Amino acid sequence: MKKALDFATLLGLFVGTAAILGSIMTAGGLSGFINVPSFLIVIGGTIAAVLIQYPLNDVLKIVGVARQIIQHNSNDPTELIEMIVKFAEKARRDGLLALENHIKEIDDGFIKSGLQLAIDGTEPELLNDILDTEISNLEERHKKGHGIFDAFGTYAPAFGMIGTLIGLVFMLQSMEDPASIGPSMAVALVTTFYGAVMSNFVFLPIAGKLKERTKDEVQNREMIIAGILSIQSGDNPRLVRQKLMTFLPPNNRKNDEM
Amino acid sequence: MKKALDFATLLGLFVGTAAILGSIMTAGGLSGFINVPSFLIVIGGTIAAVLIQYPLNDVLKIVGVARQIIQHNSNDPTELIEMIVKFAEKARRDGLLALENHIKEIDDGFIKSGLQLAIDGTEPELLNDILDTEISNLEERHKKGHGIFDAFGTYAPAFGMIGTLIGLVFMLQSMEDPASIGPSMAVALVTTFYGAVMSNFVFLPIAGKLKERTKDEVQNREMIIAGILSIQSGDNPRLVRQKLMTFLPPNNRKNDEM
Amino acid sequence: MKKALDFATLLGLFVGTAAILGSIMTAGGLSGFINVPSFLIVIGGTIAAVLIQYPLNDVLKIVGVARQIIQHNSNDPTELIEMIVKFAEKARRDGLLALENHIKEIDDGFIKSGLQLAIDGTEPELLNDILDTEISNLEERHKKGHGIFDAFGTYAPAFGMIGTLIGLVFMLQSMEDPASIGPSMAVALVTTFYGAVMSNFVFLPIAGKLKERTKDEVQNREMIIAGILSIQSGDNPRLVRQKLMTFLPPNNRKNDEM
Amino acid sequence: MKKALDFATLLGLFVGTAAILGSIMTAGGLSGFINVPSFLIVIGGTIAAVLIQYPLNDVLKIVGVARQIIQHNSNDPTELIEMIVKFAEKARRDGLLALENHIKEIDDGFIKSGLQLAIDGTEPELLNDILDTEISNLEERHKKGHGIFDAFGTYAPAFGMIGTLIGLVFMLQSMEDPASIGPSMAVALVTTFYGAVMSNFVFLPIAGKLKERTKDEVQNREMIIAGILSIQSGDNPRLVRQKLMTFLPPNNRKNDEM
Amino acid sequence: MKKALDFATLLGLFVGTAAILGSIMTAGGLSGFINVPSFLIVIGGTIAAVLIQYPLNDVLKIVGVARQIIQHNSNDPTELIEMIVKFAEKARRDGLLALENHIKEIDDGFIKSGLQLAIDGTEPELLNDILDTEISNLEERHKKGHGIFDAFGTYAPAFGMIGTLIGLVFMLQSMEDPASIGPSMAVALVTTFYGAVMSNFVFLPIAGKLKERTKDEVQNREMIIAGILSIQSGDNPRLVRQKLMTFLPPNNRKNDEM
Repeated sequence: MKKALDFATLLGLFVGTAAILGSIMTAGGLSGFINVPSFLIVIGGTIAAVLIQYPLNDVLKIVGVARQIIQHNSNDPTELIEMIVKFAEKARRDGLLALENHIKEIDDGFIKSGLQLAIDGTEPELLNDILDTEISNLEERHKKGHGIFDAFGTYAPAFGMIGTLIGLVFMLQSMEDPASIGPSMAVALVTTFYGAVMSNFVFLPIAGKLKERTKDEVQNREMIIAGILSIQSGDNPRLVRQKLMTFLPPNNRKNDEM
Repeated sequence: MKKALDFATLLGLFVGTAAILGSIMTAGGLSGFINVPSFLIVIGGTIAAVLIQYPLNDVLKIVGVARQIIQHNSNDPTELIEMIVKFAEKARRDGLLALENHIKEIDDGFIKSGLQLAIDGTEPELLNDILDTEISNLEERHKKGHGIFDAFGTYAPAFGMIGTLIGLVFMLQSMEDPASIGPSMAVALVTTFYGAVMSNFVFLPIAGKLKERTKDEVQNREMIIAGILSIQSGDNPRLVRQKLMTFLPPNNRKNDEM
Repeated sequence: MKKALDFATLLGLFVGTAAILGSIMTAGGLSGFINVPSFLIVIGGTIAAVLIQYPLNDVLKIVGVARQIIQHNSNDPTELIEMIVKFAEKARRDGLLALENHIKEIDDGFIKSGLQLAIDGTEPELLNDILDTEISNLEERHKKGHGIFDAFGTYAPAFGMIGTLIGLVFMLQSMEDPASIGPSMAVALVTTFYGAVMSNFVFLPIAGKLKERTKDEVQNREMIIAGILSIQSGDNPRLVRQKLMTFLPPNNRKNDEM
Repeated sequence: MKKALDFATLLGLFVGTAAILGSIMTAGGLSGFINVPSFLIVIGGTIAAVLIQYPLNDVLKIVGVARQIIQHNSNDPTELIEMIVKFAEKARRDGLLALENHIKEIDDGFIKSGLQLAIDGTEPELLNDILDTEISNLEERHKKGHGIFDAFGTYAPAFGMIGTLIGLVFMLQSMEDPASIGPSMAVALVTTFYGAVMSNFVFLPIAGKLKERTKDEVQNREMIIAGILSIQSGDNPRLVRQKLMTFLPPNNRKNDEM
Repeated sequence: MKKALDFATLLGLFVGTAAILGSIMTAGGLSGFINVPSFLIVIGGTIAAVLIQYPLNDVLKIVGVARQIIQHNSNDPTELIEMIVKFAEKARRDGLLALENHIKEIDDGFIKSGLQLAIDGTEPELLNDILDTEISNLEERHKKGHGIFDAFGTYAPAFGMIGTLIGLVFMLQSMEDPASIGPSMAVALVTTFYGAVMSNFVFLPIAGKLKERTKDEVQNREMIIAGILSIQSGDNPRLVRQKLMTFLPPNNRKNDEM
């Protein structure tokens, strides 16, 4: 497990900002797109709706989650396989109990507690059950986080539209001065613009990335369970590796026979 | 179990009202946004559709449900675990029957009847079945309540649009006076505004919060079942606690080994 | 089982009609909203699409179903429990065969055939299978009816829009007389209005109510199966009642211990 | 099995055409709604998208499927029951092998091969498995056909909108002559009209009908399996009929006891 | 397995391009529809959102996937059946081990490793498990690819709308020159046009085709598993063929008895 910058996200943020800002700058300048009240109603309304929908603790937690979008703990499945195979070799040579000394070096809590259970002599079915429950509880907790970003992505365009409606109502109420109609409507539309950009450029893609990350993490953990069960049953390290390889796409397998 | 104010909801209601009202006030004043007929058709039409869709009893019940949004019975899982572990210690020391005297002090009906079943010597499978049925009946009943709020959230913008259509038809029929076109259309749009605000600021977030609450309550009850089964099987109180801890996120666990 | 008026539906129809008509009348009168061609294209197109989608027999059946919306056979679960407990007492006192004489008095075909199967000595598993199949066939049949109302609710706004497009095309083709633009567009929008009202005030809420009714009926029938199986296994009438009580919400239970 | 005209579809096509054409004719004549380029972009774009999405063979097959919409092979479940009961009587009287001579007369391949398997002495579980696989393969194949019609129904309005956008762009580029604005926009909107009509009056209802047909056919085949298994187990013909009757709605059963 | 051009896709691309370009050319020429900034914001914004949502590696992989849309590895199920039956004959004649020499000639990795497992004497259940896991891992990996194309298809119209909003805001801010309003709005709408065409003509149909391909590949592989299990159990080659035939639609079966 190591901290890794997510270059795709950074690149995406850069490309998207360039596309949107560039298109605005070349067309005439940013000034018409900066509107504090528009921004306040979209961001305020969206946060308000999310606060009503989710407990305060969970909403505050997403600040931490958001940081993970740029910099995240990545578990490379190939490295995981190497580590598990190394443990399998040690267990084969010196017995399962010999792993006890190496557990402290592991910084992934899931492998740690799984190996500890194996060393303690837990029945394979029970070990599988306990770790499976751990995975499904993880999925449940992560789903709440995804739900909050999805909610932001859903409410942002709605409050963008609400802000535009407010602007339109004021514009329509005072149409004596035809010259002011256009600019008033421009201001009203900026709110829709804010809602659409926040939703499609920020909240929905982030919700999507978090879902992908959870899928990867769940698959890694399922591979870890398979590995620990294989070690526990005394499998040959070569067989342990072969079993874990089926979790990788064919191209990434060392002995790609499929 | 204790009554707790839901600060997130209150904060959300405050922030949202501030964002919407603030944006209207700074732009020119509230008067153009107060329109009784617009309000009547949105709220009337929405209530009508919900009444056609749901039995009267269920619709009336949501008044009580709505009150729970601000002030709700919260079961803190950590406190629940402490309570169950305390019972486990007592059962371990003085036998399962000794719990009989403590049952009266419990105000959560679910734990009460679960422990009673255990004391009565109900088979673990049957006990599990009965309490599981109780949980799934609870989910069914709650789902009806969520459905009513979802229906409010779906019909409100539809009747907002219907009201706007009515306003537009009248405006278009009498366009002799160009000066009245703008204000008439403003009035028509206010109805869409009402529908959008009711749906996105009130009904949909509340439906979402109720769904979250039900999920939490179901998870608490599943933890309670696991605890009672563990007590019944004579588990060591330390083991009971360890089993229940897997229901908490890693950070909240006392002996966080995962 | 007794015929009961569904007051919520009647109230909903009244409130909705009042809201829509009231809003139209106070704003200027109904005349601009009566447009036979608009009505014909929405209702004609919607019926046409539904006829293409569903067999003629099924479409004709919904006339009968529609009548059930106002006046329906209601099976009060509490009364059902009383009836089943009465049968349990009789069976306990005089034997299962003694129920034969009472079967004729039952007018619910499901209980009738279920009890007959029990009296005939059908194995509990087979009895459960037969009645379960009956329930899932009922659900399938009802789903078709819901589907038809859902289809009405989906096609009505689509044909409302198609009608509006027709009106707009004609209006745009002959814009020489500016005075006629407004009224022509008003007429065009009335078709959208018809589609939106039919869908959101009539078809979708009715589809929703039928789905709720089916859920209630299915739950009642599952309770009946539980009751008949309990009678067949010779359970104490007190236990029969207790088992059936778990199907009711806590507040409605006589001995509310949960 | 016999060929049957689907009157509902014909009636639907007639009613819908009457509603749409009637509404156009009475409002001013068809000429404004005939626009070859509009038609070409909607139908061309939709066919193009469907060709990209589905293999050529599957797209060509739907011409045959489309013919089935008007004239289809109908298997009346009541007639099916009569036929199966007749076979049950023959098998009861003269033994299962006696059915061999009657198999040639059956024109439904599914009953034919099912009875052949029974006569060949196939184990009931294997017979059930083989015929079940046959049903689920049929469902898979039909789903692809439904998917193609659904795709037509989804892409048609999209290309209607694309065509309208093309028209609007041209109109907006040359607004010097105000008199031409209306007619140009009318032409542009006709493309949206085409997409909406094709989707809601043709493709989506047909996709819906095909789904209903598949459901009916699957239910018939499940009834046939139940019948063959019942014949194979040597059931009394009266019992065979009773078992099959549970597949019919209560009103259609001969001895309606439920 | 052989490389095959996908004519439907090529035909679809040709028909669609002809429909869209033809409709633009006949209406007045392509010049108004070429707008580099519009193109940049749609394609830039869409790529940005997809990069934020998916890991860089996965996004880069779709270039390879896109090539498969025109030219793909096709496994004709009829040829697969012939090959498997040939193996069954050889195994029947010379024993399972005799297949070892022929394995090298197979270029499909899935059949290869499946047969190898059979020759190695793997238990049928384990063999089935391993190959099933391989299939579900394949489905998971393919789903990610479909998800990326779906994301492109979802974000493209959103950024089309965002670009149009930008254009509208600029247009509305400077409406002094009425003559420029039309052309400015035309330019704004071109962005919506780009988003709609990319989504409905390119990304969504491709996502759909990839899903169809995966379904076909999964079905082929399930047929292969059935074939290998049948060979392993020593089935008569005639029976092997008969079992595999049930995977084909009735018309394609050689001895079409159903």
